[in-house]
Amino acid sequence: MSKMIEYEDASEEVRAVYDDIRATRKTEYINNFWKVLAQHPPTLRRTWQMVKEVMTGPGELDPLTRELIYVAVSVTNGCEYCIASHTAAARTKGMTDAMFGELMAIVGTANMTNRLANGFQVEVDEIFKR
Amino acid sequence: MSKMIEYEDASEEVRAVYDDIRATRKTEYINNFWKVLAQHPPTLRRTWQMVKEVMTGPGELDPLTRELIYVAVSVTNGCEYCIASHTAAARTKGMTDAMFGELMAIVGTANMTNRLANGFQVEVDEIFKR
Amino acid sequence: MSKMIEYEDASEEVRAVYDDIRATRKTEYINNFWKVLAQHPPTLRRTWQMVKEVMTGPGELDPLTRELIYVAVSVTNGCEYCIASHTAAARTKGMTDAMFGELMAIVGTANMTNRLANGFQVEVDEIFKR
Amino acid sequence: MSKMIEYEDASEEVRAVYDDIRATRKTEYINNFWKVLAQHPPTLRRTWQMVKEVMTGPGELDPLTRELIYVAVSVTNGCEYCIASHTAAARTKGMTDAMFGELMAIVGTANMTNRLANGFQVEVDEIFKR
Amino acid sequence: MSKMIEYEDASEEVRAVYDDIRATRKTEYINNFWKVLAQHPPTLRRTWQMVKEVMTGPGELDPLTRELIYVAVSVTNGCEYCIASHTAAARTKGMTDAMFGELMAIVGTANMTNRLANGFQVEVDEIFKR
Amino acid sequence: MSKMIEYEDASEEVRAVYDDIRATRKTEYINNFWKVLAQHPPTLRRTWQMVKEVMTGPGELDPLTRELIYVAVSVTNGCEYCIASHTAAARTKGMTDAMFGELMAIVGTANMTNRLANGFQVEVDEIFKR
Repeated sequence: MSKMIEYEDASEEVRAVYDDIRATRKTEYINNFWKVLAQHPPTLRRTWQMVKEVMTGPGELDPLTRELIYVAVSVTNGCEYCIASHTAAARTKGMTDAMFGELMAIVGTANMTNRLANGFQVEVDEIFKR
Repeated sequence: MSKMIEYEDASEEVRAVYDDIRATRKTEYINNFWKVLAQHPPTLRRTWQMVKEVMTGPGELDPLTRELIYVAVSVTNGCEYCIASHTAAARTKGMTDAMFGELMAIVGTANMTNRLANGFQVEVDEIFKR
Repeated sequence: MSKMIEYEDASEEVRAVYDDIRATRKTEYINNFWKVLAQHPPTLRRTWQMVKEVMTGPGELDPLTRELIYVAVSVTNGCEYCIASHTAAARTKGMTDAMFGELMAIVGTANMTNRLANGFQVEVDEIFKR
Repeated sequence: MSKMIEYEDASEEVRAVYDDIRATRKTEYINNFWKVLAQHPPTLRRTWQMVKEVMTGPGELDPLTRELIYVAVSVTNGCEYCIASHTAAARTKGMTDAMFGELMAIVGTANMTNRLANGFQVEVDEIFKR
Repeated sequence: MSKMIEYEDASEEVRAVYDDIRATRKTEYINNFWKVLAQHPPTLRRTWQMVKEVMTGPGELDPLTRELIYVAVSVTNGCEYCIASHTAAARTKGMTDAMFGELMAIVGTANMTNRLANGFQVEVDEIFKR
Repeated sequence: MSKMIEYEDASEEVRAVYDDIRATRKTEYINNFWKVLAQHPPTLRRTWQMVKEVMTGPGELDPLTRELIYVAVSVTNGCEYCIASHTAAARTKGMTDAMFGELMAIVGTANMTNRLANGFQVEVDEIFKR
């Protein structure tokens, strides 16, 4: 529905981001999210910079773990696009059917216990306070 | 604030859960969450059963990864108790300061892009549809 | 922390709302929520009007059921003030400890299955479409 | 979109859950949610067990009240599938058009006042602290 | 999907609301939201009254600013209908493509930092406490 | 509760961010959020960069409008820290008591109608689809 900016029609600034996405991900495919964000080039540039550093930069968490966390957040928020795209990304990075099932089980359980802690008005234990 | 049921005052049903928590976690400490849930024994029993299976049962995701996912959900929901308790649990299972920082960066980024996808009304790419 | 407007210091407009709260609830006590909202009289007036009609007006749902629903929403959103005040209101209207435990169990379960439906990307059944 | 496991193709473990759903609900129909969850049998089994106990087990809240609470949570979270399926279930259990309208009015009002309490930073009254 | 009540089929009470919407907005068009809410006339009447006063009544915030705030909330909650309708309304009131991009950037950033503040368990500064 | 990194104890990388915060905001005060984020320098640096560009960079929305939007998101999410800090920031930039009241009224109303649209399953009007 939303207007997408194709490479051919993109400004220099937008093309530079598309080129970097392609180089970083080693694929020609630019997914809809970026083509729609290109409507507002500064948001495209800043968002890609953040996602690139956080998801592909050096760090102690491996790429699959990062995607599992991304999916967990997206599922909790009910973001249809992000669930679809990051579940696909997680599979590309090695997520098996069993891992996906376990991920969903944890996300569901955490959403349940979050509300039980809220509703029962549980006080934080002293030992959990740093 | 909420009433907590101590072992001494607990019914047989509640004690059985407390005993299983202690045996499973290899610690005498029962945290406030369970002592408050003990106000309603069936909820205590069912919740512990779910948490136990999902967080300590056999599976492909290792214990630390499971806790990182739990923290990601709790932070997204803003559940103070769950953030405090599961961050502590994650540290016990090996989460370093760097891992925590990376986890927060991913959770923050996902919460940002979830809203960008919503607000820009991005259509799901065909390749992400299974 | 937030400034509260006491009856003595209130304008005519605010006093009229306070009087109506007292008459409707048959109590002298005005809880903090209303005294803080009184900072912005139109918001106080409109909010009380809505709450009064929805929670105490004629209808098919009895007063206790209405409060249980209010608590369910407040727990899902993690609103500390609303959880405390509406749990107290529900008890006044007859909520037993067992009912509270059952309410929490349903709220927790629904929050869990909401995310499972999101994450597994379940299609709505034809029979559920009106 | 998501793969659904039909009875004919299901493992013993999954069939046992399907049989129990049918027996408990007194209908041959298995809705999509369960057929998709069957991709991960332990999640199917645990989720059904939780939903069955919480929604159909003995308790003080009647079946319709339980469904109204379920709908309230699902609407607050914006879970399309759960709204559709539990609204249908509530109607089966006796929810009239008027009840549905009142339910929506309460859910909307609670979502409004939850934010007013957050935004005005209202302190919890001493009398609401147990 | 949901049943919509057209003017021809509406009761006196519903027609009065439709007439007021048309007069207030200076357009013949009644959007789906109101036609669906008309299923429950008291909810239609109260909701319109609230929206009318808050969005078109006298005040210090101009109409465009009010719509930007409405979109910000709707995007944060992921409400598809509200995002579509209020984005359209904001454009009618003068929102440019650049403003929309900036709005999305702020909404995304706030959703990110909200979680960083939660997850890092940041204490409120004394100077921010009134 | 969370550890805060003071300027004296900060690394070069962290000091550079603190210096930029001070220069940009024209105040010596560094609020807790940044001092806690300094635990993970890359997150501090990236988050500040994003906030700085989005909130103080050139654009069509004025500084006060940007803060109102930030508060609207924070209130919707129930982030206590962000509500306190951005409400204070908005006041510094000119938000009056009346504006704050109107802002809360809009945020409350939007949160209400978001759920009414969800719950009544309203279809998006053709005219709202771009």
